[in-house]
Amino acid sequence: MSRVYNFSAGPAVLPESVLKEAAAEMLEYKGTGMSVMEMSHRSKAYEEIIKTAEQDLRDLMNIPDNYKVLFLQGGASQQFAMIPMNLMKNKVADYIVTGQWAKKAYEEGKIYGKANCIASSADKTFSYIPDCSDLPISEDADYVYICENNTIYGTKFKTLPNTKGKTLVSDVSSCFLSEPVDVSKYGIIYGGVQKNIGPAGVVIVIIREDLITEDTLSGTPTMLKYKIHADNESLYNTPPAYGIYICGKVFKWLKEMGGLEKMKEHNEKKAAILYDFLDQSKMFKGTVVKEDRSLMNVPFVTGSDELDAKFIKEAKAAGFENLKGHRSVGGMRASIYNAMPIEGVKALVEFMGKFEAENSK
Amino acid sequence: MSRVYNFSAGPAVLPESVLKEAAAEMLEYKGTGMSVMEMSHRSKAYEEIIKTAEQDLRDLMNIPDNYKVLFLQGGASQQFAMIPMNLMKNKVADYIVTGQWAKKAYEEGKIYGKANCIASSADKTFSYIPDCSDLPISEDADYVYICENNTIYGTKFKTLPNTKGKTLVSDVSSCFLSEPVDVSKYGIIYGGVQKNIGPAGVVIVIIREDLITEDTLSGTPTMLKYKIHADNESLYNTPPAYGIYICGKVFKWLKEMGGLEKMKEHNEKKAAILYDFLDQSKMFKGTVVKEDRSLMNVPFVTGSDELDAKFIKEAKAAGFENLKGHRSVGGMRASIYNAMPIEGVKALVEFMGKFEAENSK
Ligand SMILES: Cc1ncc(COP(=O)(O)O)c(C=O)c1O
Ligand SMILES: Cc1ncc(COP(=O)(O)O)c(C=O)c1O
Ligand SMILES: [Mg+2]
Ligand SMILES: [Mg+2]
Ligand SMILES: [Mg+2]
Ligand SMILES: [Mg+2]
Repeated sequence: MSRVYNFSAGPAVLPESVLKEAAAEMLEYKGTGMSVMEMSHRSKAYEEIIKTAEQDLRDLMNIPDNYKVLFLQGGASQQFAMIPMNLMKNKVADYIVTGQWAKKAYEEGKIYGKANCIASSADKTFSYIPDCSDLPISEDADYVYICENNTIYGTKFKTLPNTKGKTLVSDVSSCFLSEPVDVSKYGIIYGGVQKNIGPAGVVIVIIREDLITEDTLSGTPTMLKYKIHADNESLYNTPPAYGIYICGKVFKWLKEMGGLEKMKEHNEKKAAILYDFLDQSKMFKGTVVKEDRSLMNVPFVTGSDELDAKFIKEAKAAGFENLKGHRSVGGMRASIYNAMPIEGVKALVEFMGKFEAENSK
Repeated sequence: MSRVYNFSAGPAVLPESVLKEAAAEMLEYKGTGMSVMEMSHRSKAYEEIIKTAEQDLRDLMNIPDNYKVLFLQGGASQQFAMIPMNLMKNKVADYIVTGQWAKKAYEEGKIYGKANCIASSADKTFSYIPDCSDLPISEDADYVYICENNTIYGTKFKTLPNTKGKTLVSDVSSCFLSEPVDVSKYGIIYGGVQKNIGPAGVVIVIIREDLITEDTLSGTPTMLKYKIHADNESLYNTPPAYGIYICGKVFKWLKEMGGLEKMKEHNEKKAAILYDFLDQSKMFKGTVVKEDRSLMNVPFVTGSDELDAKFIKEAKAAGFENLKGHRSVGGMRASIYNAMPIEGVKALVEFMGKFEAENSK
C-alpha cells in the first residue's frame, strides 16, 4: 500500500514531511524522553511548542500586535455560539448567507439576539457570492458575519464585504493560510484547522483585542469566553496539545515553502489546471460562476447521476480518494488544499480526460 | 535519549505499545493510503475506528444499553457548564467539594441555578473525603455532583455518596478505567481522557438516556447539548478524530492487559509500593488520610521546602519527570496512571530511599 491522492474536504491531506516528523518523534520528542501526547501542558517543552506555533502563525499571516491568537476546542461549530455570546452587546448581528456553514452560524446567532440575513445566494444553490458592496448593514449591528470560503459549494469571497464600519467576523476554515490576508480588516478571523492546517480538534481564533471583554451575554460558560482563553494564553485548561503541535509543524512547512504569497501562486496554479480542464471538457463542468471560484474546493458534475457514480467509483479504484460531493449537493468535489501536491491535480485531470474519452460516444 | 519515567498528572504517560503502533500507522493507516489525521470523519474507515472504540469501552466498563457514550471536545472544564445547562430542570444542584476541580464545577453551576455545597473537605486542605452517608440532599436537586478522584490532592471516593435517589454526576478524569465501576449507579460519568486514556482534546461522557432531552436551559449553544451529540453518534460536527483513534488503541491495550479487574490489581500493587515506602520513611510522608488515598495520584512532602526542591531536581536529573506537586499545593506528587509500569514505581521508591539515606544525618 502507498499513499493515495486524498481530495477530502476535511479532515484532509497533510504534508507528508510533517507526518514523517511526527512519526519519528512519537516516542521521544527531542530531548524530553516522552511523546508530545504525554507532555504536561505546563511544561517548558510544551510551552516552547505552543509559543513557537503562535509566533510562526503571526509571521505567516503578519498578524498585528493588537490581535490575540487563541488555540481552542469545539471546532468551528462552537464558534457559531461563542461569537454572539462574546460580541453581541447590542444583540444585533448581520449575516451573509453563502452556504450551509454560514447558514448554521446565522441560525445559531438567532439564539442570542436579532440575527439578520442581509444577503444570500440560496436562490442559485449557493453557486455564487452576492454583491456585498452596498448591503443594508444594521445601524446597531455588533458585527457582520461571513463564511469566506464555502467548502461545500466551492465559492470564495474575492472582495470582502463593505461592512460600513462594522466589525467583520470571518470563518476561514477552508481557506486558512491558502493565501495572504490583511488581518487588520477583520475583528475575528477563525477556522477549524482540519482542512489546511492540522488534525481535527483545534480551532484557531485571531481576535482584535478590543473585542475581548468581560461583558459577555449572561449565561456564557466560562470555557466560551474569549477573555478566559486570552488571559491564559490558551492554557486556561488542558489544550488540544498534540493537535497544536502538528499545526506548528505545518506552519514551519509553510515557511519553508516560502510563505503565503508562494502558497497563493502554488494554489492558483493547481486550481487553474483543474478549472481549465473543466472549462474545455464536454463531459465535466464546474458548478460555480467563474469569478467566485474557490482555490480550495472545486465541485463539478457530469450532468448524469449514473456517470457521476461511475466516475467516483473508478477514480477511487485508481487511487483518487474522497471525490464524492457533499451529501447535501451530490456530484463531485475535489478539495485541493495547501498540502495537495500539484502532481495530484495533474494526475486527476489526466484521469478525468481518460474517463471522458472512454465514456463518450 | 531514551524514555523517562513520566509522573505527570495529565497529559500523562501512555502505553509504549500504543505509541509505537501510532507511529507505524502515521503515514498509512491499514489499507487506506492515508493517516488517520487526514481521514474524513464520514469515511467507512473512520466509522470503524470510532464504533470499535465505543464498543471496546462498553465492553471494558460493562456499560448498560440505556447509556450513551459521547466523544466530545472542550475538556472536562466544558462539562462544568454542559452538565447544568442540560440537567438543571429545577435549577438546583448539590455539589460535594473535595478539591479544586469540584470547586470549579460548583462555581460554574452557580451561573445556571442554585448550586449548593452540601459537603466539603476544604477545612483540611482537601486531604480527606467527607462522610457522605447522610448529607442534606436538596429536595428538588437535579443532580448530586462529585469529583471522584481528586487529581491535585490525591483523594478518592471509596464509597459513592448516598444521593437519596437523586442523579449522581461524577468527574472521573483522573481515575477513568483504573478499576471496575458500576455505571448503573451514575447518571453521568465523564472525564477528560488526557490522564488515563489518550491525548488531551477528547472528553468522554457516559450518560443515561433519560437525561438526554431537548429541554436544556435557554441560551444553551447547540454544541453544548448532549442530545445533538447523542443523536449524531458524536459526529454532529468534526470530532477530535485522531485523539479518539488513540483512545481506541488504549482500550485495546486494556483488554489485552486483562480488563479493569486486572488493572485494579495492578494499580493497587503499584500504589502499595509507594504508600508502603511513604509510611515507613522518616523523611517523606503522604498528605492524605489513609482510607481515602487515591491509586492514581500520590502527593507527598518532606516537610521542608528546600528538601522538596532538592528532591525534585535530583529526581529529574535521574530520569523521573514531573514530580513537582500542583502549583496550588507544592511538595511532590507522583501520578501513577494505568500506563505507568510497575518498574517506574519501583525505581522511584529506590531513588527516594537513596535520597533519604544521603540527606539524613
Ligand atoms: C467553512 C466551514 N465552517 C465550519 C465548519 C464546521 O467545522 P467543525 O466541524 O470543526 O465544527 C466546516 C466544516 O466542514 C466548514 O467547512
Ligand atoms: C479531576 C479533574 N477534573 C477536571 C479537570 C480539568 O480538565 P480539562 O483541562 O480537560 O478541562 C482536571 C484537569 O486536570 C482534573 O484533574
Ligand atoms: Mg459551505
Ligand atoms: Mg465543461
Ligand atoms: Mg483536585
Ligand atoms: Mg513517612
